Amino acid sequence: MKILLHISYLGTNYCGYQIQKNAITVQQVLCEAAERVFGVRCDVTGCSRTDSGVHANDFCAAVSEQGKSGLVTSIPTNKIPLAFTAVLPTDVSVWGAEEVDDGFHPRYDVKYKEYVYMIYNRAVPSPFLADRSWHYPRALDDDTVARMNEAAQRFVGTHDFASYMAAGSDIKETVRTVRAAEVYREGDTVIFKVSADGFLYNMVRIFTGTLIAVAEGKLSPEDIDAVTDAKDRRLAGITAPAKGLYLNRVVYN
Amino acid sequence: MKILLHISYLGTNYCGYQIQKNAITVQQVLCEAAERVFGVRCDVTGCSRTDSGVHANDFCAAVSEQGKSGLVTSIPTNKIPLAFTAVLPTDVSVWGAEEVDDGFHPRYDVKYKEYVYMIYNRAVPSPFLADRSWHYPRALDDDTVARMNEAAQRFVGTHDFASYMAAGSDIKETVRTVRAAEVYREGDTVIFKVSADGFLYNMVRIFTGTLIAVAEGKLSPEDIDAVTDAKDRRLAGITAPAKGLYLNRVVYN
Repeated sequence: MKILLHISYLGTNYCGYQIQKNAITVQQVLCEAAERVFGVRCDVTGCSRTDSGVHANDFCAAVSEQGKSGLVTSIPTNKIPLAFTAVLPTDVSVWGAEEVDDGFHPRYDVKYKEYVYMIYNRAVPSPFLADRSWHYPRALDDDTVARMNEAAQRFVGTHDFASYMAAGSDIKETVRTVRAAEVYREGDTVIFKVSADGFLYNMVRIFTGTLIAVAEGKLSPEDIDAVTDAKDRRLAGITAPAKGLYLNRVVYN
Repeated sequence: MKILLHISYLGTNYCGYQIQKNAITVQQVLCEAAERVFGVRCDVTGCSRTDSGVHANDFCAAVSEQGKSGLVTSIPTNKIPLAFTAVLPTDVSVWGAEEVDDGFHPRYDVKYKEYVYMIYNRAVPSPFLADRSWHYPRALDDDTVARMNEAAQRFVGTHDFASYMAAGSDIKETVRTVRAAEVYREGDTVIFKVSADGFLYNMVRIFTGTLIAVAEGKLSPEDIDAVTDAKDRRLAGITAPAKGLYLNRVVYN
């Protein structure tokens, strides 16, 4: 068996999830913690790479012994979160654990993932959301949020999303299926929630920038179809900052 | 006139509000910002001292020219928050400003203040609330929260609160009037909200520790009256950590 961990983290102080030289990453912190918890060197395989500064509410990662397909442990599964709590820094938390088969792969077996993007919408920024949202000072009124939501509906479905992929990506297969998308207000925050079977590099952040272009009247909701059809990154909006983005949920087959 | 500022701040990186030597405080940051905004040295007088690590949603402070009873400025009052935004660090924010009379005093003219204490109540801590709540891992079920709320009602009224004042305080007049108190759950957080005409040193944090003693069955809600009557700090609960405390609101006469 492998152990699938449910993890939340504040991405502010990390260079993303994926391990790399000369930079601190969430994966590295989890690898070190897993070794202390299980007493053997471990591989910790994530459901996704996230960018520097991106956060997660429910990031999934599978733990196996280094170089092996599974892990043997005497720790009861329900005690694993507490064992991690004792050795993790305060900005990374393992809040759930479950047993999965050796053959399980946390990235390839994803059915869909859900992201949330937080836009803090008051004239002045909030000290409590500085690294946790994009501060957009101009008022997004109810009509505007409704138009953003209308635009977001046009992302839904199976499309070639090349227009919403970071320039310079070397991914060739750019068709993805967006299952649902929604823009709504919650207090002072405007939230964009989107789920898909997969996401291209920076896709949610470019979706968000495009929705802001709709808010500002640079694009109409109807224009979205033409932006998508053009497969041209230059027609979509800006790439919204990483700090507003949260991997919210991962659903497996 | 003076300018009354409405301020929110994340207290994590500050040694409280009140200016002091060799430590960075919110007042110091505001004084420096006010000088840049108004072009003259300023006095910034707060509604309260807050402890190191305590936060504020609506802290009030009045600005006057240094050594004078008022301030002359050509900046329209509704533009003052944006002017402060440009010069403040991200963990302090001025979100409102209003004109008040020269004679106004932000501390002496307080009718009542409201504090909120946040208890994060899941088995493992949240990376998003690490410095912003007290992590209490044992489940506080609905009955327990109801008992805490019942106990909190016994703080309401005019009482001598010496039992809930930090040992070693040199305050002699320890009678205060608590207007309202409430304990309730909001998702994974148990919130204690309390308002009073004034608070003794550490009073809200000791109230919170006492409510946790009730949650743990060390005290019953009915015991609170005896704890209060004893005027003995040793009978109340522990002092809950500063990081869960927020000055929520200040109401003036």
